[in-house]
Amino acid sequence: MATRLRVAVIGAGYWGPNLARNFRSSADWELAAIVDLDRARAQKVADSVGGVLVLTDVEDALTDASIDAVAIATPARTHHPLAMRALAAGKHVVVEKPIADSSERAREMVDEAERRGLVLMTDHTYCYTPAVQKIRELVADGSLGDILFIDSTRINLGLVQPDVDVFWDLAPHDLSIIDFVLPGGLAPTQVAAYGADPIGAGKSCVGYLMMPLQNGGMAHVHVNWMSPTKIRQMVIGGTRRTLVWDDLNPQQRISVYDRGVDLLRQTGFETDRATATVSYRLGDTWSPALSEREALSAMTEEFAGAIRDRRSARTDGYSGLRVLEVLEAASRSLAASEAFTPVRGALAASV
Amino acid sequence: MATRLRVAVIGAGYWGPNLARNFRSSADWELAAIVDLDRARAQKVADSVGGVLVLTDVEDALTDASIDAVAIATPARTHHPLAMRALAAGKHVVVEKPIADSSERAREMVDEAERRGLVLMTDHTYCYTPAVQKIRELVADGSLGDILFIDSTRINLGLVQPDVDVFWDLAPHDLSIIDFVLPGGLAPTQVAAYGADPIGAGKSCVGYLMMPLQNGGMAHVHVNWMSPTKIRQMVIGGTRRTLVWDDLNPQQRISVYDRGVDLLRQTGFETDRATATVSYRLGDTWSPALSEREALSAMTEEFAGAIRDRRSARTDGYSGLRVLEVLEAASRSLAASEAFTPVRGALAASV
Amino acid sequence: MATRLRVAVIGAGYWGPNLARNFRSSADWELAAIVDLDRARAQKVADSVGGVLVLTDVEDALTDASIDAVAIATPARTHHPLAMRALAAGKHVVVEKPIADSSERAREMVDEAERRGLVLMTDHTYCYTPAVQKIRELVADGSLGDILFIDSTRINLGLVQPDVDVFWDLAPHDLSIIDFVLPGGLAPTQVAAYGADPIGAGKSCVGYLMMPLQNGGMAHVHVNWMSPTKIRQMVIGGTRRTLVWDDLNPQQRISVYDRGVDLLRQTGFETDRATATVSYRLGDTWSPALSEREALSAMTEEFAGAIRDRRSARTDGYSGLRVLEVLEAASRSLAASEAFTPVRGALAASV
Amino acid sequence: MATRLRVAVIGAGYWGPNLARNFRSSADWELAAIVDLDRARAQKVADSVGGVLVLTDVEDALTDASIDAVAIATPARTHHPLAMRALAAGKHVVVEKPIADSSERAREMVDEAERRGLVLMTDHTYCYTPAVQKIRELVADGSLGDILFIDSTRINLGLVQPDVDVFWDLAPHDLSIIDFVLPGGLAPTQVAAYGADPIGAGKSCVGYLMMPLQNGGMAHVHVNWMSPTKIRQMVIGGTRRTLVWDDLNPQQRISVYDRGVDLLRQTGFETDRATATVSYRLGDTWSPALSEREALSAMTEEFAGAIRDRRSARTDGYSGLRVLEVLEAASRSLAASEAFTPVRGALAASV
Repeated sequence: MATRLRVAVIGAGYWGPNLARNFRSSADWELAAIVDLDRARAQKVADSVGGVLVLTDVEDALTDASIDAVAIATPARTHHPLAMRALAAGKHVVVEKPIADSSERAREMVDEAERRGLVLMTDHTYCYTPAVQKIRELVADGSLGDILFIDSTRINLGLVQPDVDVFWDLAPHDLSIIDFVLPGGLAPTQVAAYGADPIGAGKSCVGYLMMPLQNGGMAHVHVNWMSPTKIRQMVIGGTRRTLVWDDLNPQQRISVYDRGVDLLRQTGFETDRATATVSYRLGDTWSPALSEREALSAMTEEFAGAIRDRRSARTDGYSGLRVLEVLEAASRSLAASEAFTPVRGALAASV
Repeated sequence: MATRLRVAVIGAGYWGPNLARNFRSSADWELAAIVDLDRARAQKVADSVGGVLVLTDVEDALTDASIDAVAIATPARTHHPLAMRALAAGKHVVVEKPIADSSERAREMVDEAERRGLVLMTDHTYCYTPAVQKIRELVADGSLGDILFIDSTRINLGLVQPDVDVFWDLAPHDLSIIDFVLPGGLAPTQVAAYGADPIGAGKSCVGYLMMPLQNGGMAHVHVNWMSPTKIRQMVIGGTRRTLVWDDLNPQQRISVYDRGVDLLRQTGFETDRATATVSYRLGDTWSPALSEREALSAMTEEFAGAIRDRRSARTDGYSGLRVLEVLEAASRSLAASEAFTPVRGALAASV
Repeated sequence: MATRLRVAVIGAGYWGPNLARNFRSSADWELAAIVDLDRARAQKVADSVGGVLVLTDVEDALTDASIDAVAIATPARTHHPLAMRALAAGKHVVVEKPIADSSERAREMVDEAERRGLVLMTDHTYCYTPAVQKIRELVADGSLGDILFIDSTRINLGLVQPDVDVFWDLAPHDLSIIDFVLPGGLAPTQVAAYGADPIGAGKSCVGYLMMPLQNGGMAHVHVNWMSPTKIRQMVIGGTRRTLVWDDLNPQQRISVYDRGVDLLRQTGFETDRATATVSYRLGDTWSPALSEREALSAMTEEFAGAIRDRRSARTDGYSGLRVLEVLEAASRSLAASEAFTPVRGALAASV
Repeated sequence: MATRLRVAVIGAGYWGPNLARNFRSSADWELAAIVDLDRARAQKVADSVGGVLVLTDVEDALTDASIDAVAIATPARTHHPLAMRALAAGKHVVVEKPIADSSERAREMVDEAERRGLVLMTDHTYCYTPAVQKIRELVADGSLGDILFIDSTRINLGLVQPDVDVFWDLAPHDLSIIDFVLPGGLAPTQVAAYGADPIGAGKSCVGYLMMPLQNGGMAHVHVNWMSPTKIRQMVIGGTRRTLVWDDLNPQQRISVYDRGVDLLRQTGFETDRATATVSYRLGDTWSPALSEREALSAMTEEFAGAIRDRRSARTDGYSGLRVLEVLEAASRSLAASEAFTPVRGALAASV
């Protein structure tokens, strides 16, 4: 093991303590400092990990040449200024999601990191769970074949957020995961979003998001704050197999079905689509064993690996940027009052 | 019990035998004849119900004054001409779904029945299952409150149909059920449909359909021929309670959750939406016992009741018409290449 | 394909029509006659399979030299006399379960068939389902390793039978399946049965049956007429893998878990049990695809195969005999008022 | 609120920190001290609750007149001496389960507490979960009617314990819960236990325990360390309704089924059992909402309530004693090599 990298955690609110605990217990990292304007809050986090330097001025961390990296866990609107200052000070940066409060500012961060040759990583924690790691692996090694469709459902009785709608609250999880597991990342050129606000909350509480995939496929995300039952499920259909991830079933989170539909094309002469034969595979189901590793532990390892190998992190700044771009397009789609086709004769229908 | 009504079943193919068997065992009906151009096929159905008159010419049934009604179970394109002739002959008519092969022809049938004061019923069989009957009852008696959203999923590894896409194959079930349980019936003025054809079948194999409901709510239908797992689920969210219908769980098909989100509005002065308080109910769950009655038996009873009471059937011609109008609008929406919003910067994204 | 064997079905009650239908559609068999004292009942079954000879006297079938075999589907008390006469007439015999109304009479049947070199088969239909066939295969090919324990649950809200208790009503299924899948068959030398009759039905309505397996293992069967939920589950634990069969989950009836407990023994010197190390395997889960074949179709094929190959059927007379012997021992165990150990001090306990 | 009671937690190992945290956050209690022979370990627990007196000699706590009670969370063999000394010092006592390492010593503790008029409570934590509290309530208010049978399953891939068998490891949970919810407590006069040790661990790894209930009913407990799937389920059948508790289903832990079997007895003249008519109820299912309260918080409240009201705690010393008595009887039953009935003819069976 090489010398440990030194990191300062900026922000001692909700997420900071988790970061501090995982950097502390990592073989790759030395936790160098906790930074928060509120010294008492920072001290409490420092105590919880057995003691570490407490700072109230972020400059003290940025000017400390022994510190290699910072982990930013502050409110979203401060991500950009803090990350830009840290990059300017030559520090590698990992930022809690969302990477910034707009794609424009996220792009500035990405460009700055690239110019300086520093690692800029988005902490898309879900991507580092054993389940999502396994999904990425199965897509990458061709077990599923080409991806035909993705259908993701993330619904429950949820808190109506004061500042964001259900898309911005829940869909970042689905989008960052799709970005992580697809070989080409999340790269839709267009989206369509439909939302409903049946309780008059002033924002969408039920939302549907559609994104064309390559080759005629489609990704669909259903987010909902009003469902009495909780569902966390993603189906990824491929040409070879279909994977179902049910995150609420600890006994069988991932199922890989060797079932599917194939279109058989005759070779040697042109086959009309209408005459192409469809066949069905009805094979076995397989559920891989998953490790029990904590996601943030794998995240900190990836951050260290990216710095040491001078490579992009798996969830780099671009992945954070792509998620923001899709969410912004979804908001524009909603603002355009969505796009419906009139039902003919409906108004005249006797009911 | 009044005198039994007399019915002829027209069509001895897939559905006719089921109709014949249920009319035969009904206390309301006397099965008068089986009509099919293919005498042998008609005879086989007649034998299976213990013997009944077999006819090969539909005119013989229509000119028989002792016959009150006909049940049409022939290919969709023949529904309109057969129904129009039957209505002209003064017979009440029940038609297998879809009521016709276009909404225009369906409207002619509806108008003709109305003009003649005859019952025209669509055999939306699913609506007569004990589960859907119970759902209608719970909506009607206010147990759910006002309907806020409907989310219906009907997916499985399905046969790719030669003549219709996944919307026309599967969504009629969801649409006829929504039409049946909503107090105002299925009355969207607009729809949006998104489909995917990732295997190059020449038609949508995965489909999503959105319809605004009154008061800001939305109905969403997901149909899919490519899912390795089978799901038949409808969630109906209301202001008072939310109902989940899981048709593949015979031990608990319907669950009524006394859980939900309420927006509390202060009275006495204008409340800004943003400051309205949201509250959560986390009450009991209740699963009503359902009868075991066969759906077609309830359908034949409703047909008789409508004729005797000179009223519309619950699934009358208009319900068949409304389903067709929504499907036609969905097809137009698809043909318009759907409606997407571009993702800014996406094409330039480094992946 | 060799010449078809000819079979007469004796008994046109509940099970006879199923046998007739499957023999009729089999490539191995020619359905020769339906025999029942009640000619009308026999005729109805004959009609339902498209017509076949109807007999009211079983002797007419037994003296017909063109008939190779009989399938007996009459009340249990008549199995012995009918089978003995058929064997005496040189016919191969398959008998609906239970093979006889006592193990003594079953043994006479088995001995008679053996003496005459005829096939005597018990129609343990469940053993011919695709799931049980697959389980037998997985046990036989060593996928599970040595069998350590079997736990079978067969509970639901059931009809309280007038003539038998819950053991005799439900446990024959579990016992015949265990007999079928274990390499050595169902061979316990002792059993213990515990029953409860909390509603005063005069017989056990809830029952537990324990049977030691070889090597310190145990089989346990729970049968219950009073459970509001229905469960049909069997767990078969082996040294290599453990199999769970959930017959009410059509999407995943069989799951094979590569999880288990191993006792590691050091070699080279004596290891005290207390110091033996236990290890845990936490591997993948696998669910084999199952065919959709009807069980009775596979049963008729096995009957033909046994006759043609002059071998025992997989569910031969001995398997029927073994099931009866275990049930009789269970009844004796119950009649002996079971065997309990007193709780010391319990009567004096202050409650 | 009256003055807070003062408590010392004895033992800073696995369970002590949980007790300390809950006493600390209770409105009823003031956490007075953490006692452990290992000062560093005690200090760590003290720090984790924000600081409290640390003691290494239990006498210092027992001689402190300001301390009202002690909570003992030390190894089982030390429960008796510590509790006896605490009672002698006039302290109320709550003891982690098992209350002692033998029923004889438990009885001494119970007698001592009674003589001195002090509260002696067993920390059967599971009984204070919202689910078990609700079950007790439903049994007590007659919602289930008279209890007919109880079937409890607690199986998973578990650690083979070095010092106890699967009965002593897992069944105390089931037994303490049954004791808690039955109006008369756990009061079997006899038990039968059957165990299997198929891996040669030197102790039962699979176990079945049967206990007659009053009125012909039976309780059955299945504990198993070798199951690849985890089940935590208890079915309580009553004359009016049946309850199923599935502790691994957070969305519906408790289901109350209004389904069951009734034996109708005719009045006016003697009815033979055989002619009594059975009827079936097929009513609704109901799942009560449960609070989210932590079990140990409710336990500390009950401990305070018992002291203040000078009454027995709900899980008093007797409940701990009864659980021990049943486990000891189960061990005797096992040691007697269980009680089996021979299967006649089995050895001669051809397999």
